[in-house]
Amino acid sequence: MTYKVPYKDMQLLVAQAYQQQGLDAVESLEGFDPELANAVMEEAAKFASGVLASLNSVGDVQGCRFQDGKVITPNGWQDAYQQFTESGWIGLALPEEFGGQGLPKYIAQPVNEMWLSANLAFVMFQALAQGGSEILLNFASESIQQRYLPKIVSGEWTVAMALTEPNAGSDLGALNTKAIPQQDGTYKIKGQKIFITYGDHDLTDNIAHLVLARTPDAPAGSRGISLFIVPKYRVANDGALGEFNDIRCTGIEHKMGLHGSPTCSISYGDQDDCIGELVGELNQGLMAMFVLMNEARLSCGLQGVALGELGYQRALEYAQERTQGTNSQGEKAAIVDHADVKRMLLEMRSETFALRALGYQIAAQIDATEAAHDQVTLDETESNQSKKARVALLTPIFKAFATERANVMAGQVVQVFGGMGFVEETGVAQIMRDARITTIYEGTTGIQARDLLIRKVRGDQGKALTELLADITQLASFFEIDETFGVAAKETLKAVDTVTSLLTSHLLKLDVNSVSLHGVSVPFLEAMGILCCTWQLFNVLAYQQAQENTDKPYMQNLRSMVKFYTAYRLPSAMAALKVVENAGLGLSEYEF
Amino acid sequence: MTYKVPYKDMQLLVAQAYQQQGLDAVESLEGFDPELANAVMEEAAKFASGVLASLNSVGDVQGCRFQDGKVITPNGWQDAYQQFTESGWIGLALPEEFGGQGLPKYIAQPVNEMWLSANLAFVMFQALAQGGSEILLNFASESIQQRYLPKIVSGEWTVAMALTEPNAGSDLGALNTKAIPQQDGTYKIKGQKIFITYGDHDLTDNIAHLVLARTPDAPAGSRGISLFIVPKYRVANDGALGEFNDIRCTGIEHKMGLHGSPTCSISYGDQDDCIGELVGELNQGLMAMFVLMNEARLSCGLQGVALGELGYQRALEYAQERTQGTNSQGEKAAIVDHADVKRMLLEMRSETFALRALGYQIAAQIDATEAAHDQVTLDETESNQSKKARVALLTPIFKAFATERANVMAGQVVQVFGGMGFVEETGVAQIMRDARITTIYEGTTGIQARDLLIRKVRGDQGKALTELLADITQLASFFEIDETFGVAAKETLKAVDTVTSLLTSHLLKLDVNSVSLHGVSVPFLEAMGILCCTWQLFNVLAYQQAQENTDKPYMQNLRSMVKFYTAYRLPSAMAALKVVENAGLGLSEYEF
Repeated sequence: MTYKVPYKDMQLLVAQAYQQQGLDAVESLEGFDPELANAVMEEAAKFASGVLASLNSVGDVQGCRFQDGKVITPNGWQDAYQQFTESGWIGLALPEEFGGQGLPKYIAQPVNEMWLSANLAFVMFQALAQGGSEILLNFASESIQQRYLPKIVSGEWTVAMALTEPNAGSDLGALNTKAIPQQDGTYKIKGQKIFITYGDHDLTDNIAHLVLARTPDAPAGSRGISLFIVPKYRVANDGALGEFNDIRCTGIEHKMGLHGSPTCSISYGDQDDCIGELVGELNQGLMAMFVLMNEARLSCGLQGVALGELGYQRALEYAQERTQGTNSQGEKAAIVDHADVKRMLLEMRSETFALRALGYQIAAQIDATEAAHDQVTLDETESNQSKKARVALLTPIFKAFATERANVMAGQVVQVFGGMGFVEETGVAQIMRDARITTIYEGTTGIQARDLLIRKVRGDQGKALTELLADITQLASFFEIDETFGVAAKETLKAVDTVTSLLTSHLLKLDVNSVSLHGVSVPFLEAMGILCCTWQLFNVLAYQQAQENTDKPYMQNLRSMVKFYTAYRLPSAMAALKVVENAGLGLSEYEF
Repeated sequence: MTYKVPYKDMQLLVAQAYQQQGLDAVESLEGFDPELANAVMEEAAKFASGVLASLNSVGDVQGCRFQDGKVITPNGWQDAYQQFTESGWIGLALPEEFGGQGLPKYIAQPVNEMWLSANLAFVMFQALAQGGSEILLNFASESIQQRYLPKIVSGEWTVAMALTEPNAGSDLGALNTKAIPQQDGTYKIKGQKIFITYGDHDLTDNIAHLVLARTPDAPAGSRGISLFIVPKYRVANDGALGEFNDIRCTGIEHKMGLHGSPTCSISYGDQDDCIGELVGELNQGLMAMFVLMNEARLSCGLQGVALGELGYQRALEYAQERTQGTNSQGEKAAIVDHADVKRMLLEMRSETFALRALGYQIAAQIDATEAAHDQVTLDETESNQSKKARVALLTPIFKAFATERANVMAGQVVQVFGGMGFVEETGVAQIMRDARITTIYEGTTGIQARDLLIRKVRGDQGKALTELLADITQLASFFEIDETFGVAAKETLKAVDTVTSLLTSHLLKLDVNSVSLHGVSVPFLEAMGILCCTWQLFNVLAYQQAQENTDKPYMQNLRSMVKFYTAYRLPSAMAALKVVENAGLGLSEYEF
């Protein structure tokens, strides 16, 4: 499927995030400036729009196949994988110590967005390598790090995350896979896992499975789960590949979308001969998962942005080519000139833009907090904690809202295509089918909403949320006296005030287990998502105005997006907040 | 896919619509009372939940095939078709004169809903037979009626509607198919049509194509389109089948959903040997289409209800079986007990219920207007015109809103299933894929919104809309002093007042071609959809209370739905009206 990298947006938003998060002042990031970012993006763009994008429909049409116990990836996957790893893309944001390029996240973010737009099914191994590496860097022994990380960072081996079991999905505490301690300190792993992305494939010689399992005397529930690294082929102390480790793929799922990404069922230790090593402390497996999950959730939110962009490009292209009906002069009109089609396109455009801005700011903020890790004065530590809290607060919003919206937008893309969108050959149905899983994996929207409300908002008595609202207020107040944006700014402030008052009247007050609270968690997240997008649009406008951006058409479109978004989408935030205020009315009484 | 007929709702809503539309007082409907309706529904239910439902996934998995120029329907389709027609279901609401059962629409509505829930792809021929018959009854010569109607009504032949061409979709005025007059009064048809549902298949010996085409001297655009009946095999004067009529299927679409329904490309008169007969007057083809379209739009809205019901049943069943996480007592909890899952389920339940109520009222109202056709006094004529205007007003709302919501709900069904929903074997992805076309065919949501705003609202200077709002006001006022529903009633009245004031300030006032108007047509329709659902829920509650319905659990759930819907969904109507008020801000300025 054709995909053009949205350079102008990316460069502008990358540079803005870099400046606004103060990365220019960070010593350890010297040299890693937007100029480097642009050079990296340029390279990545060629590969994304070229090789990867052209394989996107191949992956969808052909899909992965499961034959004789083996997973065969679609035609072209192997070549593309080799090119991808040889160009060093896997290790882009991984430590130089293990062969990576050690780039900050703010540069990796637009690059990852390109991969995800170009071919989501293909590049799923990339986020796994990134997440898996971070787990090993944080929790694994030096021996494991030395044996595994160089291979993972180079892409010589891939990573698989084996979490889910048939009866343990969102509730990982229910899992049953066993890990039996052996004399030599290793563990024998035995159990069945499902939904393992790239759990088996034909791209590399080895696959490092990170498996959640229970030791025999572990406590019940989520406190008794440990993490193990379990390679498909054993790894000797010198890193050499050894014998088969009794890991069998028993099948792959026939999915609605993402056909090019194998989703495997794996049986560990069928012959009692599957050996794993403990990663981190016993029974602390879920803690390691939290590291991964934050990473994965941000990556998943970025998938929302990427699919939104891809869909928007396809819809716009079609709307500009397809004529139907006449304009006011009685001439044949391209459907982009019909106001309702324009509405759909601008909805996709403005929301994708705003979510991209949000995603890039989050990435730069993570860089800032990591760089500040070694700062010593109390003040800076506090400011850093507050930045970390901000990232933690925004993560579930970004993950859930960007993916929910990507689903809505993908539906709109099909709608713009009309009957042709329903026909698979046009390719846009694939976007919709691929997008469907993004609100489910890495924690459903419901789970993100609970995380937001219970951990992130109630967890600190509303501190991080209040700080966020203060930032939005400051920005909106700046526009309050603006002739063009005054009304929009006032509406934004009204939404902020509503959240503030709901915080004390409902969100912090209601019983933590009440239906009144949990029954409105998703509407609350939705309201926050729209509010964050509004904030980001105002933020880009304010910053670009201050920078005296001289690109007139770009600035005009930016102003148009701010007007449009606040006119069309902000009312939905108010509606969602009204739902929060209604606190689950009628919900408990219904007997199914 | 399992489907249980929602008897209780259907019977209750059928009886209510019958009473409220005054059908008990209609002489010509004597005997066609709710008792008969129940008996018919009972019979239909067996067939729907039995044969049809069990073939639903077969159709999806196997799909139709195109081999050697022929369309082969999925396994079981032929048998099911035979059973369907032998039981007389095609002619259920068609005139007895031609072999039908002549049942009123209010009885056909729940029956059709069953078919659509059970197997949408299969029964698409049914709406075609119904719509095609109505066209012939209204416009065709007696000779055509005599030769075709008995065969269509019995199901011996099917009907295909050949409208769309590659460059003429929503804009039928652009079509190019030719009709050359012959000496004997017939026409030679020549042209290519696409997207023809059941345009070819292996279910019957003959197919009656209703083809839109242009005669050589016809005016350009939509004023030069005529309608022809063009059989696959010619039909002699005595009704006997003659030779092949040069109609060739050139392929079927590979669609996202509705795999069991063949969507054909058809070439008419490749060998210059395709003969058609004019139906109605020359150049009046679109008028005939309008008859069909109203019929088809109501049927399409009902598809939204039917898919909503099917999805709700699957989601509820899964949510009651699947355990994940714990309840407040620390016990394993079925996910139906998680407030956010309950929210999704009740959203589907209440909206589907409300839309069903709306659909049944519309059907009964059509019966009432048709029965009143022969009434003579001026008063009754006026009241009847006003009823017709009501149906005309509600038609685009019902079509577009019910199908848009079916898409949202189908997405929610997958969400309730989590990862399992993304796996095709569970079957719920099919509901989402099937639903996707419903907001497109029979006029996209954008086209319905334009019809609503321009023809139905502005066409009579807001008269029909004002009458509708008055009815909603009357009902809401009744609940305004109610202890439990007072707040919900007040919110409803607020929404009505907002529509009323927007009518004069915007909807009737803005330039008819303005972006400010067309750019908010879909939000306006959405607001009206929610408002109509609210109205219907209050209406059912009021009526059942007045009837002193003694089914306590049912009444409790009904009250819960009214509370829930007004708390969760009514705010979105207000948001959509706010968007209307914002009148396309930012939309014209953006340069794509």
